[in-house]
Order: sequence, then structure tokens, then C-alpha cells
Amino acid sequence: MSNMAMYTAEFFGTMILILLGDGVVANVSLKKSKAHDSGWIVVATAWGLAVAMAAYITGWVSGAHINPALTIAMATVGDISWALVPGYIISQILGAMVGGFLVYLSFRDHFAATDDANVKLGVFSTGPAIKNLKWNFITEVIGTAMLVVGILGINYGENGVGPLSALLAGFLVWSIGLSLGGPTGYAINPARDLGPRIAHAILPIPGKRDSDWSYAWVPVIGPIVGGVIGALLYNFFLNIWV
Amino acid sequence: MSNMAMYTAEFFGTMILILLGDGVVANVSLKKSKAHDSGWIVVATAWGLAVAMAAYITGWVSGAHINPALTIAMATVGDISWALVPGYIISQILGAMVGGFLVYLSFRDHFAATDDANVKLGVFSTGPAIKNLKWNFITEVIGTAMLVVGILGINYGENGVGPLSALLAGFLVWSIGLSLGGPTGYAINPARDLGPRIAHAILPIPGKRDSDWSYAWVPVIGPIVGGVIGALLYNFFLNIWV
Amino acid sequence: MSNMAMYTAEFFGTMILILLGDGVVANVSLKKSKAHDSGWIVVATAWGLAVAMAAYITGWVSGAHINPALTIAMATVGDISWALVPGYIISQILGAMVGGFLVYLSFRDHFAATDDANVKLGVFSTGPAIKNLKWNFITEVIGTAMLVVGILGINYGENGVGPLSALLAGFLVWSIGLSLGGPTGYAINPARDLGPRIAHAILPIPGKRDSDWSYAWVPVIGPIVGGVIGALLYNFFLNIWV
Amino acid sequence: MSNMAMYTAEFFGTMILILLGDGVVANVSLKKSKAHDSGWIVVATAWGLAVAMAAYITGWVSGAHINPALTIAMATVGDISWALVPGYIISQILGAMVGGFLVYLSFRDHFAATDDANVKLGVFSTGPAIKNLKWNFITEVIGTAMLVVGILGINYGENGVGPLSALLAGFLVWSIGLSLGGPTGYAINPARDLGPRIAHAILPIPGKRDSDWSYAWVPVIGPIVGGVIGALLYNFFLNIWV
Repeated sequence: MSNMAMYTAEFFGTMILILLGDGVVANVSLKKSKAHDSGWIVVATAWGLAVAMAAYITGWVSGAHINPALTIAMATVGDISWALVPGYIISQILGAMVGGFLVYLSFRDHFAATDDANVKLGVFSTGPAIKNLKWNFITEVIGTAMLVVGILGINYGENGVGPLSALLAGFLVWSIGLSLGGPTGYAINPARDLGPRIAHAILPIPGKRDSDWSYAWVPVIGPIVGGVIGALLYNFFLNIWV
Repeated sequence: MSNMAMYTAEFFGTMILILLGDGVVANVSLKKSKAHDSGWIVVATAWGLAVAMAAYITGWVSGAHINPALTIAMATVGDISWALVPGYIISQILGAMVGGFLVYLSFRDHFAATDDANVKLGVFSTGPAIKNLKWNFITEVIGTAMLVVGILGINYGENGVGPLSALLAGFLVWSIGLSLGGPTGYAINPARDLGPRIAHAILPIPGKRDSDWSYAWVPVIGPIVGGVIGALLYNFFLNIWV
Repeated sequence: MSNMAMYTAEFFGTMILILLGDGVVANVSLKKSKAHDSGWIVVATAWGLAVAMAAYITGWVSGAHINPALTIAMATVGDISWALVPGYIISQILGAMVGGFLVYLSFRDHFAATDDANVKLGVFSTGPAIKNLKWNFITEVIGTAMLVVGILGINYGENGVGPLSALLAGFLVWSIGLSLGGPTGYAINPARDLGPRIAHAILPIPGKRDSDWSYAWVPVIGPIVGGVIGALLYNFFLNIWV
Repeated sequence: MSNMAMYTAEFFGTMILILLGDGVVANVSLKKSKAHDSGWIVVATAWGLAVAMAAYITGWVSGAHINPALTIAMATVGDISWALVPGYIISQILGAMVGGFLVYLSFRDHFAATDDANVKLGVFSTGPAIKNLKWNFITEVIGTAMLVVGILGINYGENGVGPLSALLAGFLVWSIGLSLGGPTGYAINPARDLGPRIAHAILPIPGKRDSDWSYAWVPVIGPIVGGVIGALLYNFFLNIWV
């Protein structure tokens, strides 16, 4: 694959991730949507499926990281060249921005029908249930370490899951969302949070609030730290196991 | 396969799609059903499974488009001959009409037990949460573009998902419903909307309203436009990727 | 396989089906259960998984019909010898009885904690949401025809789903329950209804009502008729398709 | 594999099981979590996925028993050497303790925000809905027998499910939770209950109660008895079937 192929695949995959992922938050939280208030099972299932779909569509091109934390973790353990990392990350963030824009188009009148500006921001970016930056950070670290351990485990050679691996990556994110998503809304992906946050800042959303930049570093740095920890932890065990 | 085989498969597949798909709307929205008010997770999961089941039963015959927007998109990118398109579409619409009739038979007394004529129409056809034809149209375009991109991606050769592809097509529709279904009820399929709307107009449903023909073009034209956009978009990326 | 192997597999598979299937009804409907009132998504998902689990455990021995309607349908189209049918059906009904007994053991104190005798019967047997024997019968016919068409389609040679077929059979039942289960509680299986109904009549359930034998023929005859219709319908299309 | 490889895999797999499994209980039951009160479907789905993820990550090393009842059952029928059993069990309990600790870190402020000390204990350990040790014991026996029968069935050679087996093990636990989990919270695994109970006793959880040691033997002995019964029962049928 050429670099351009990989970068466009990361762009497109992350766009799909956010269209479907931020889409479900809009679907569940914006007023008058037919799915309004349909609960956490809808949110977590849809995010998991969003990952799986993005991975089936683009995984065969670029590996479908669609997540800078995963890209950095993969580079840390040598599964991808560091030279590709900047291009991957920029493509992911741009894709996430466009995904956020598509969600805005899909739910345009529902943004207008919703009064609560926090809900509108919540469609785009994550926020903590109890704001406490240190502990929010730790929650994101643990969730993303789990993500990276899971990705590395599912794709480890002896499993031989083949075309199931994209589906299982989705089920992994389904699992993390159901189990660990409540305290911070589980960004576990800097692009997933930053790209749509920029889109929120730019888009002419009626009655929007500021984009809460004071929290924005947590879902960026937390996942990067957690992803590296997860990759090192998995490699630590791999050294014992094989 | 003969044309007759393919047309009957499209007829039968779309019939199953609507029996199970419109069935879940009846199950959740009609009064006194044991599943009454059981929520969006039930609706979206069931539509996804309806697609998967129709695809397993008829996909090996005709590809189980069961959707004129997909048929037209596939013809646009050369995956099916234009000569087959009219037969496919007619078969799909007829199948959807019969599917709607079977839903009526399955839930007959529950239609009588339900007072709200909008709910009864909603079993058969989609309608917007906030009526605004331009934006409803855009929502259907985006949802169907996502559908076609997903179908083309899942079935792209290098994935090699084999018999999983029917299940994944169902999961794709599960995903779209969970994430993008709230504003318009996600027709994303002209036959899914038009066939049952005709059934609604014909059937002796007690206390029914008119079949809202003023909205009927949106879930027909929107999905066709979205499907073509999706196919072209996917091909655009494919040209970069391979 | 010997006949004894096949009969014991049908016994054991149907026992598991009912332990897990009637189990979920107990789990959701009996008082003080931690899953009390957790909704239709729980009920339908669990019945689907119950089928899949029974099929993985016993399918390689006997085909895991675990359903007299399926056995009769399979015999009608020549997929199983009529000589095996009586043994299959007797084994299925006995297995379902034992399954009902295990549900009673698992939830014993919750039966005592529940006042409503209809709810207690509902753990074991199906009942109509709106009692109207003719239309309840039709609902069971359509649901079971869908089941048999689906089973035959999923297992049709060219699909080649291999070990997925048991999972897909479960997803088929998941789908039917979500979409068509509300009017009658979707027996779609004479043993599923009759076996536990006998168990209900025998077991010393505190505060139980009669076992509603006036309705008992509907979920026995309806599924048998529907199953045969489904098998003939599928064969009708198969004659066109291949 | 060396013993050390297998023991560390059991440690790590059980840690992941509890991080994701006890995680979902925290997510659903602790105050102010975004997933608060999201219901049994979330709890049971997440426990099932937790098993699948732990099995994909560690199953190729140690078989991913992650459950002393399964280890003892496997030893009973000769699928694992008794010499490995003590190391497996110790590793599982230690992993479960660490998993409980990670849940505490992930949800730290939510423990403080929750008043009910029973809810806080419930994040770590199971408890009965209606306390009656004899019948709680029987419920755990039946649930774990179902677990072991299912595991042995899914993995039986002729099924040939290959890399699906970890996913199906997760679906089995999903099924058991949905269907049989309400009376006791379905420990069906001594390490799943004992490890986090010890963590609860040790950790500085604000406003915690005692760790209810009077009940602790039920989810330890019940699963062990049930697991052995399940293994013997499956072997009994296997002797008839092959």
C-alpha cells in the first residue's frame, strides 16, 4: 500500500467511526429523535458496531487504527513504522472532523430542537460524569490499555480469526463501553474526541456552548498513555508466553 | 442463475425483510403486544437481523439486494447489469407489499386495539420525527450512502468474509439504525417504504389514516441518490487504494 | 448415529432450550429477580441464544431440531426419515418437561414471591396477548413458517456457513422473537409449549392456576401447520432457483 | 507451554474478566455513572463479552479457564492434569483480585458518590436476591452445570468452530446471565466471586460494609459442584453419542 492509500483509509475509516459513533449519541440524546432516551445499550452497541464497520471498510488498506492512541501504541511495539505515525494521526483527526460534520447534517433540526447546550457538545466530544481530571485521566488510561491489549490479543497469530478480527475489534469496544464507559464517556481515542470537538467549535450549531477546552487534554493524553501501557503490558506477557 | 430465479429471490427476500422489519415496528408500537414500548434497541436489532436472514435465505441466488437503492448503486458501478434493474426493483416492491400484508395478518387484532392512526401507518412506512423535507432528504441520503459504502466494503475481495457477509450486512443495518435512524426512521430503501405504504393504502386496517403520499418521495429518492453517492465515493477511494 | 444417540440428543437439547428459554421468562417476570422487568430485548435475545447453545451442544448428533414442528417439516421435505419422527418428538417433549423442572428449581423462591398466577404459568407456556384462537393460530403459523424457511435457507449447501449455522439458527429465533413475538409469545414449537405446560400441571408451584389447556392446541397445531407450509414454500422457491 | 505461561495467562485472563465484568456492575449500579440504571441487558451482555475478550487474549496460552469450577471440571474429565489445578486456581483468584482493584480505580469517585453500601459490595461480589442458602446453592449448581456442558459442547471436535469458540463461550455466559442470573447474580465461578470479595475487604472504599463472608461459600462451592456435575453429565451423553 502507498502512504496515500493508508492515510486516506485512516481518514475515511475515522470519518465512518464518528458518523456512526457520534451519530448514536445524537440519536439518543437530542430531542424529538425517534431513538431519544433509548439508553446505554444503544450507545455502547452502536459504538462497537461503528468500529467494526470502519474496520471492514478500511482495515485491509491501513489496518484501520482510526485512533492515534492505537497508532502510537503499535509504533511503540514495532507493528508500524514511526514514519507513518504523523500522517496517520492527521488523517484520523481530519476524518473525525468530517464525521462530526456529517452528524450535524444528519440531525440538523434536532440540534435546534434541543435546548441543553451540554447535550449538544456531548454529541461531539466526551465529558466526565464527575469532573476530577486526575481520576478521569486514570479511567481513560485503563480503558485504552484494555483496548490495546484486546486488539493485540485478538490479532495475535495463533488465534487465526481472519476476517472475524474486525468484528471482534468492534465487540471489544462494545465491551469496554458497556463496562467502563460511564465515568468519562470512554473517549479511549484522541481523534474521536478532538476531531469532533473542533467540528463543534466551527459549526454553526444553534445555541451551542464553548467546546470545553479545559477538559480536552484528558481524552487526548489519557488514551495515548493508556495505549502505550497496554502495548507494553501485552508484550511483557507475550515474552512469557512464547 | 436465470432472471426468474433472481427476480423471485428478490421478491422473497424483500418479503422476509418486511415481514421481520415492519413486524418489529408492529411488535413495539401496537397496543397490547407483549413487546409494546420495548424501545429502539429492539427496533434496530430486529431490522438488522431481518436483513441478515433475508440475505442468508436468498443471497446465494440474487445477491439479496432487497433494496432498489442498492440495485441502482450496484448497476452504477458495474456490479450488476442495468438490464436486470427493472425486474429487481419490481420484484422488491412486490415482495415488500406481501411482507406488509403478512405483518397485518400477524398483528391483526393489535391494529384494532390501537387508536392512533399515525402509529398504524408507522408500522408500514417511515415518517420524519421533525418534518422538513429538505433535511429529511439529506438524512436519508447520508444513511443510504453509509449503507452502500458498507456493503461494498464488507464484500470487497480482500476481506474474504465468505458466509459472514450476510451477517455483516445485517450488522451494518443494525449500526445505521442505532446511530442514524432517529430523524426519519431510516428507510434507506425505497422498496421498504413504498411497498408497505401501498399495502397500507389497500388493506382494510380499522381506523387507518391516509398513507401520507406527500412524504413518500423522500424515502424513495433520498435513498437512490444516497446509494449512488455511496457507490461513487467508495469507488473513488478504491481507485486510491488498489 | 444410532437412534438412541439421536433421541437422547433431542432430549438433552430441548432440555437446554427450555432451561435457558423458560429461564429468561422466569428471570424477567418473577418478582425479586435481579432481572425483573428488564424487557423484551432480554427475553428475545435469551431465547435466540438458548437455541444456539442447544444447537452447538447437540446439533452434531441429531441436527438439534429440538422442535416437533421442525422435525415434521424436515420429514415432509425428505430431510429426515418419518421412522425417526415419533422418537424425536417424544424425546423433545420429555426434554422440555425436564427443562421446565430445572427452571422451577432455579427460581423456586421467586415463584413463591410472585402473586400473579398468570405470570407463573407464563414462565412455562405461551399465551396470547389478545385471545382470539383463529388469529393466534395464524400468528403461530406465520412465525413458524418463517422459522422453517430460515433454517432451510441458512443450511442450504451453497451458503457453506459451517459451524456458524447453529449461531445463525439462534439469530433467526432472536429475529422472530423481536419481530413477531408479541401477539402470542411465539411458541413456534409444540414441545416448547406442551412440555413445560405439563411440567406446570405436575409441579408443586405455590399459588398456581390451571394450565390453560383450552389454549394448548394453538401452540401445538399452529407451529406444525406453519412448519409444513414453510418447508413447502422453501422447496417451491428452491425448484425455481436451482 | 510452560506452567508459568499458563499460570500468568490465567492470572491475566481473569483480571480482564473482572475488570470488564465487575466493571459493568459498577457502570450500571454506581451513582452518577452515565450508564446508571441501564438494565440487565447491559449487565449480561457485558459479562458475556468479558469472557469472550479474556478468552481471545489468553485462550491460546492456557485455554482461558479463568474459572476454578471449570478447571476442576476439566480435570475431572481428564482434559487437564490435576497437577496444574492448584496453580490455575491461585492465578485465577489473584487475577480476579487485581481486576477488582482496577474497577475501583476506574470508578473511584463513583464509589464515593454512592451511599448504599450493599451496592458497593455488589460491584465486587454476588449476592442472592432472596437469601436462602440451600436454594441459592442449587441455582449456582444449575447455572455452572449449564456453563460446563456448554463449554464442552462448543469445543467438541466435530463442531470445528475454531476461532469462534472464544466468542461462543462469551455468548454462552451471555445466555446464562440473561436466563438464569436473577436469583443469585450468577457467580458460576469461584474466582469471580472470591477474588473481588477479598479486594472489597482490603480496598479503602468509602462507606463500605463488611464483605458478607456468611454467603461467600455459596458462590465458591456451588459452582465447583455444578461444574463437576456438568462435566460428568456431558460425558455421560458423550458415551451414548460416540
